[in-house]
Amino acid sequence: MRLAVLASGYGSNLQAILDAIERKEIDGRVEIVISDVEDAYALERARKHGIEGVYINPREYEKREDFDGVIAGLLQERQIDLVILAGYMRLLSPPFVKQFEGRIMNIHPSLLPAFPGLNGVKKALSYGVKVSGCTVHFVDEGLDTGPIILQEAVPVFDDDTEESLHERIHQVEHRLYPKAIQLFIEQKLRLEGRRCMRVEK
Amino acid sequence: MRLAVLASGYGSNLQAILDAIERKEIDGRVEIVISDVEDAYALERARKHGIEGVYINPREYEKREDFDGVIAGLLQERQIDLVILAGYMRLLSPPFVKQFEGRIMNIHPSLLPAFPGLNGVKKALSYGVKVSGCTVHFVDEGLDTGPIILQEAVPVFDDDTEESLHERIHQVEHRLYPKAIQLFIEQKLRLEGRRCMRVEK
Repeated sequence: MRLAVLASGYGSNLQAILDAIERKEIDGRVEIVISDVEDAYALERARKHGIEGVYINPREYEKREDFDGVIAGLLQERQIDLVILAGYMRLLSPPFVKQFEGRIMNIHPSLLPAFPGLNGVKKALSYGVKVSGCTVHFVDEGLDTGPIILQEAVPVFDDDTEESLHERIHQVEHRLYPKAIQLFIEQKLRLEGRRCMRVEK
Repeated sequence: MRLAVLASGYGSNLQAILDAIERKEIDGRVEIVISDVEDAYALERARKHGIEGVYINPREYEKREDFDGVIAGLLQERQIDLVILAGYMRLLSPPFVKQFEGRIMNIHPSLLPAFPGLNGVKKALSYGVKVSGCTVHFVDEGLDTGPIILQEAVPVFDDDTEESLHERIHQVEHRLYPKAIQLFIEQKLRLEGRRCMRVEK
């Protein structure tokens, strides 16, 4: 299966996915990594693995739809089956979401629907939760509102800082995201309303 | 320590508290159980344990504050240290919350701040979360918005019904609520902003 990764930053989830592919835990190949940030380390990671890394400058496009249209064009040309957001800091425009409906995944560092959007870890800590976690979900037009594929909880400790909690969540993310991707590849996910169920093929 | 329980229904958490007291896991005594529902089984449980069970008819009071004022009067007379909500289906009025500030606890069948209010289990299931749980928190003037004392996660399975998920959450509640009450009694809880920390005495 042909995968694309969209990333704005360091790309630690991208790395986890590439590692899982090398361990043959994901039956797919990352064909392209696209970033909206020129010096995103995610692009460097892609190139190190011989994967095409493309920077697209959002400031060159007046409308979000136009910027997303360029990305959609690249994905179509490469016949991408699954679009994986990995620390991609932009909300996708409705036409893009429509075009790749049910084929876009995101990972978020909280137990959604709690603490969507930016700074999920910080918000959870300030709120004072005792349990947080991470969520892999399909992307719809909302902000972190799409159907949930996998979630896993982590404890929050009294002496946690944003960094220590984020680190604990990252560890789980790096295991959970490859698992969700492989379930998609094996066609083991089925939506019933907004509940995402597992089916055995 | 002198405890009061407010309950509107079956009172399974009340029973868990009474059992924990009998096992000496809670160093306190339930002095009174108050209900806004005449035939609440919680009242029956109280009487079976030789505890005063009082029904107060909300329809006899025009204002919520007046109804809550009667409850507050009973609690004051009995010199109650901690007010425990156990399936109490009314929002407490601000003067009541003010009077017993930091001394009212509630338990909720979700990982707050997700799915507050009525039907927390049903809402979580419809949303499609893969992890839910329960929350013990101090009560403030909002709806399930007070500082969190304890939380514990439970998995949500594809074949869960509202009943099966609620049952799994109840099992955790019956363990978590006595634990939170005992932490309060031992004065091991300290608020920092809205984060509730554990301190060793």
